[in-house]
Amino acid sequence: METTTYTAGILQYIPFFYVIWSDDLLSYSEISVVKNAIKNDDTLTKEDLSYLLKNLDKKKPPSYQEIKHWKQVISHSKIKLVESDVYPLATFSQNMICHHFEACPFNNHLKDIEINLGIQPNHYNHLFEVQIIKVTSSSFYNPLEIDNILKGEHAPVVDAFRDVLKDPIFKWSIRREKSAFRAHVLKQVTFLAKEGYGAMAYPEAYGGTDNMPAYAAVFENMMYVDGSMAIKFGVQFGLFGGSIQKLGTKLHHDTYLSETGKATILGCFAMTETGHGSNVRGIKTTATFDKETDSIVIHTPGENDNKEYIGNALDSTMASVFAQLIVEGKNHGVHAILVNIRDAEHKLMPGVTIEDNGYKLGLNGVDNGKIWFHQVRVPRENLLNKYGDITPKGRYHSDIENPSKRFFTMLGTLVGGRICVARAGLGGAKKALAIAVKHALKRRQFNDSIKVQEDLLMDYPSHQLRLTPAIASCYVYDITLTHMMKLYSDTTVPDKRKVETQVAGLKSIITWFANDTIQECREACGGKGYLMENQIADLKGDVDIFTTFEGDNHVLLQLAAKGVLSDFKSELNSDGFTAVLKLLGARISDTLTTINPAYTNNVDTVHLYSSKFHKDAFDYRTRRLTYTIAMRIRDYVKKGIPSYQAFLKVQTHLLELGKAYSVELAYNTYIDFTATIEEEKNRLLFEKLGVLYALNELKKDASWYLEQGYISGTKSKALRKRVERLSTELRPHIGTLVDGFGIPEHCMQAPIAK
Amino acid sequence: METTTYTAGILQYIPFFYVIWSDDLLSYSEISVVKNAIKNDDTLTKEDLSYLLKNLDKKKPPSYQEIKHWKQVISHSKIKLVESDVYPLATFSQNMICHHFEACPFNNHLKDIEINLGIQPNHYNHLFEVQIIKVTSSSFYNPLEIDNILKGEHAPVVDAFRDVLKDPIFKWSIRREKSAFRAHVLKQVTFLAKEGYGAMAYPEAYGGTDNMPAYAAVFENMMYVDGSMAIKFGVQFGLFGGSIQKLGTKLHHDTYLSETGKATILGCFAMTETGHGSNVRGIKTTATFDKETDSIVIHTPGENDNKEYIGNALDSTMASVFAQLIVEGKNHGVHAILVNIRDAEHKLMPGVTIEDNGYKLGLNGVDNGKIWFHQVRVPRENLLNKYGDITPKGRYHSDIENPSKRFFTMLGTLVGGRICVARAGLGGAKKALAIAVKHALKRRQFNDSIKVQEDLLMDYPSHQLRLTPAIASCYVYDITLTHMMKLYSDTTVPDKRKVETQVAGLKSIITWFANDTIQECREACGGKGYLMENQIADLKGDVDIFTTFEGDNHVLLQLAAKGVLSDFKSELNSDGFTAVLKLLGARISDTLTTINPAYTNNVDTVHLYSSKFHKDAFDYRTRRLTYTIAMRIRDYVKKGIPSYQAFLKVQTHLLELGKAYSVELAYNTYIDFTATIEEEKNRLLFEKLGVLYALNELKKDASWYLEQGYISGTKSKALRKRVERLSTELRPHIGTLVDGFGIPEHCMQAPIAK
Repeated sequence: METTTYTAGILQYIPFFYVIWSDDLLSYSEISVVKNAIKNDDTLTKEDLSYLLKNLDKKKPPSYQEIKHWKQVISHSKIKLVESDVYPLATFSQNMICHHFEACPFNNHLKDIEINLGIQPNHYNHLFEVQIIKVTSSSFYNPLEIDNILKGEHAPVVDAFRDVLKDPIFKWSIRREKSAFRAHVLKQVTFLAKEGYGAMAYPEAYGGTDNMPAYAAVFENMMYVDGSMAIKFGVQFGLFGGSIQKLGTKLHHDTYLSETGKATILGCFAMTETGHGSNVRGIKTTATFDKETDSIVIHTPGENDNKEYIGNALDSTMASVFAQLIVEGKNHGVHAILVNIRDAEHKLMPGVTIEDNGYKLGLNGVDNGKIWFHQVRVPRENLLNKYGDITPKGRYHSDIENPSKRFFTMLGTLVGGRICVARAGLGGAKKALAIAVKHALKRRQFNDSIKVQEDLLMDYPSHQLRLTPAIASCYVYDITLTHMMKLYSDTTVPDKRKVETQVAGLKSIITWFANDTIQECREACGGKGYLMENQIADLKGDVDIFTTFEGDNHVLLQLAAKGVLSDFKSELNSDGFTAVLKLLGARISDTLTTINPAYTNNVDTVHLYSSKFHKDAFDYRTRRLTYTIAMRIRDYVKKGIPSYQAFLKVQTHLLELGKAYSVELAYNTYIDFTATIEEEKNRLLFEKLGVLYALNELKKDASWYLEQGYISGTKSKALRKRVERLSTELRPHIGTLVDGFGIPEHCMQAPIAK
Repeated sequence: METTTYTAGILQYIPFFYVIWSDDLLSYSEISVVKNAIKNDDTLTKEDLSYLLKNLDKKKPPSYQEIKHWKQVISHSKIKLVESDVYPLATFSQNMICHHFEACPFNNHLKDIEINLGIQPNHYNHLFEVQIIKVTSSSFYNPLEIDNILKGEHAPVVDAFRDVLKDPIFKWSIRREKSAFRAHVLKQVTFLAKEGYGAMAYPEAYGGTDNMPAYAAVFENMMYVDGSMAIKFGVQFGLFGGSIQKLGTKLHHDTYLSETGKATILGCFAMTETGHGSNVRGIKTTATFDKETDSIVIHTPGENDNKEYIGNALDSTMASVFAQLIVEGKNHGVHAILVNIRDAEHKLMPGVTIEDNGYKLGLNGVDNGKIWFHQVRVPRENLLNKYGDITPKGRYHSDIENPSKRFFTMLGTLVGGRICVARAGLGGAKKALAIAVKHALKRRQFNDSIKVQEDLLMDYPSHQLRLTPAIASCYVYDITLTHMMKLYSDTTVPDKRKVETQVAGLKSIITWFANDTIQECREACGGKGYLMENQIADLKGDVDIFTTFEGDNHVLLQLAAKGVLSDFKSELNSDGFTAVLKLLGARISDTLTTINPAYTNNVDTVHLYSSKFHKDAFDYRTRRLTYTIAMRIRDYVKKGIPSYQAFLKVQTHLLELGKAYSVELAYNTYIDFTATIEEEKNRLLFEKLGVLYALNELKKDASWYLEQGYISGTKSKALRKRVERLSTELRPHIGTLVDGFGIPEHCMQAPIAK
């Protein structure tokens, strides 16, 4: 077969045509990109033009013979394919014609096509039987720039912190025995406190920078060192210190906050009880005011009413104890009281019993314990009295009269912790992905009989699909959490109820995502992933509990869903409810009318990649689920079923709403952010990651969209294919994408990630 | 509101009607069950009959007022609801009318309705504002009978083994330090060997019972003690001993098998290499025959060609080493050779280097290590020569001429190990479920303000949905694996290729299922699940690697899929291929024509619960995926893409086929089995578990079925609702169902499971 059977005009397009038709992934809009480039090519003769256009007809694709012929033309060309070229395929084409023809009028638009269609060497290098100069990673994007985009305004603080982590105290090693592990983690936490990180979120007067968002950004980076360190740090400064800062008043701040920030006072956050994990309002510990002695008596009434899983319980001298506050015989609901649990010699105070929770699946550097109180007396002033106080005359007083509102206001101040847990989970996922990707860019496996070298793991389509959508999700969740922390810390908006609802949902989907991702990474690294030395095992054990603590994910998702439904709540059981439902129903019908076959069947790339499509689809799902839940609850209530039972009956439905709402929120937040990225190259990359996230999420819930008739079967298949395609398109940049997480090299100690 | 507004004839139906209409789950076939019972009730007057039938019209449901009225009638009845009654709702009805009317002609068919519709107290006890006498578990089924059905013919062996596990040596405790842990596990394994369990699968002449199926049944039970013990046991007797038994000949059996079974020789199975995890054919260790000295030289050529993750590597004196056998300069492919790696004083033999793999995510009681060989010489006779031998004259000989066939024949003999790994995973899932269920039957959480006591965790619909389908899956997989081991051990069928393919797929889906289930159980137990003392943590770490070892799941699924495609293989690239495709295509079109709207929209219970529907749906999926993959590969090949690359391009598609095939196989195997259960009560229960498994699997892949137009949106929703409904229906029996696993009480040491 001779290459000279084609003119130079045609020949330059042959590699592109071969790549395009060897798979049938091109959509109409993509084909029109190619068509336009050809039509604008003045050097083509009429015959060349006609041949080329004839072979770009999706309805009448070229014959197998034709495609096979193109393949042979390429194979026989003897041109090298150099993957490190900026435009490898266009360069290949150019070399091919210039090798065969003296005059080689090359159409430079081919370079645009190569970029626009996302054609990557890994799409076609298997198909070209020519010498291939391989690269495992493209240097098209700069990981430092990407890292800077993620860090945003916190870049200086984060960079400084990453430098601090170079200290040998942060060197990771396998620590099996809990006493030694805990002792080491305590040293690390104290070290960080000395460096000023403990007080970061506190006011300047108490040694801090009053910067909770920066604290959260730094917190994620702790996961790169060790989960136990991050959690112990969070308990001491975020939970214990945070309760003093946010539930206490000046007296408490002056007395304890500076020392807490310096870790010269160690404290724990005693909220959860054995018998009452997620139901904080139902805790049984009592704090009874005794007028005679002007003191409060803390007491554990029953066998299962002890505090449990309390982090820092074995090292602490103080505890912020959550208990039912009883004043003048009346229960005023849950309040926090500071209690000395150990004396200066670290001996337990009278009436206090503490037991080690023992070994756990992970986080064995954190000293979790159980605490019982037997009639432990503390001064009245130890009540953290910002939202509810006992007057010197011994009367209860609160500015918030409604006990329920008071309870949720107090708990609301602690929402920052949930953002931090989600951030920590995200940090774990990022590190696992970085390890798995670095391994897959070195590790070779199997091969066909022809090739000398086994393929890189990362070149397997299934491997790309396992890791790439997860990487895209990390980017989306990173930006989302940064934004949520900003909202939460915005003092101009005092009512945090909305943020609370949002964070409840996001914490759930992100910690689940983190667990799934770490597991996928473990499996993607095979036996190597199972060895402790490669650090994924620790991440897996540590991040596991994030789905449970700071609010069980199932409970939080229902909280989020009820938040969404709360606009209806006040109208439930009233005449107005039906009116609202009608209105919402009408809006959804509106949407459904816009869902004509041209929409449900639209599989064109321009449409599938448009954020409008993603936003519409997410919005539709949230609204539709809200509407149907509201309808179901209304029906149950009408039939005489009490509203608590009605909510129980729609429980699984509520969980779906909570997830849908959170995904939509994350995507919208991310998309708003990408628009602000100035440099076009990086903006397009971030946008592409957003597309992958959105399509992957829609794919995961495709059955629901199909049930609703929102997408057709063809469109559902197209979503799936596009997710695979995008995962492949990002293959050359996958090394850069995990480097963009900015995990310091000194924290990447896994031998397989070297 | 007076109950006497109804006649006795109507009144007895009121509780049923209220339960039926408070949710809208009844299908036409279910309503007709009720209708028939009413029509056959001779005691009803014409007016009563007309009133009752009027209120059983799905198209014209009773008004909210009517339903509310029924509720009030029930509430005001003052009748107690006793959940422990055999027919609690019928009994309630009967008591209600007999309380109000002197003559109370009760329709006994109501009892049948109660059973037929699967109405359980937990469906309606929330709705009845009457005194409720609660039970957490029904005693309708007997767990011992269920356990006996699962054990089948192996009952005596399994029961005896469970008794052996009472020995204090099997008492579980937290073991963090690997040397001590390993020493203990070695003691346990030696103990079991002394009891005769090591040799079980070997011929009687070597101390065994020649009973591999019984060995597998016993093996699963080892997981109830500890994962490390099970795996160490499997390595010593199954892998090392198994390689001697199955790849060796009489000389090897006579010399080593008895001692191996007694654990007086400890051995390891040195197959996997660092650089070549899943690609056994590509291993690099060489075994070069040296004619001069009549010996074989074992050698590790390169840096990453060492053996890795080799279990028992630190305790063993021998190894069954897999290496490329080179005779007269020619490579005859992978063979196994027995090598002494340590002397009588447990010192390494010259040329052998062994390194500890160190701590792992789990299984830290197993001594995994790396092994290097530097020109290690062993006698020619050490070649395990059943399928390939070196003659005394120094020539290579094998009865199987085709090297590829020879390789797969050798590997095929080791498939039993895959069944055992799946069994072990299943054992882990069962134990985690038993712990989670027992916890959820004690633990109470939240409540509405009315009730005194918080609800049991197990009474939450979302909790039922998390655990019940997984329990059903355990039953299906248990029966399936028992059957597969029987097939594998059937000496009348020498060609094991089919079983190999099947086991490859089943091992993958079952070990993934086990991991997902254990994770779900961990989360379902909240913080308690995270504590080591509650045993789920260990299960999680141990079972994790099952997805990777004995064949990586991704690789195995492709193997399974290629097995399914193998009928086509010989015809690929030949004229016959198209003919086969046409035939298959026609069959699928046939199926599609039978998929008329009446089928795709059929949401009637009788249809949804019929095994015919499940079988058809699973069969359709497997066939459709096979066809589309074959078509895609054909298209690629026609375009000139080499077949290796074509298979790479359909990789994710192959994984889907592998899963689909395995689920279908498991279901069909299970359904065939349930038909053999003699006692009707238990048969119906097993059938119901099968329905739940099938519907849950179809639900998980609903998007695919929707895309194909195989089910409508309405049907997809119906599948989801039925999975929830069945999970709720099984709620009263969930305690019995986990007891039916037969996990010995002395192995259930988790405090939360007491």
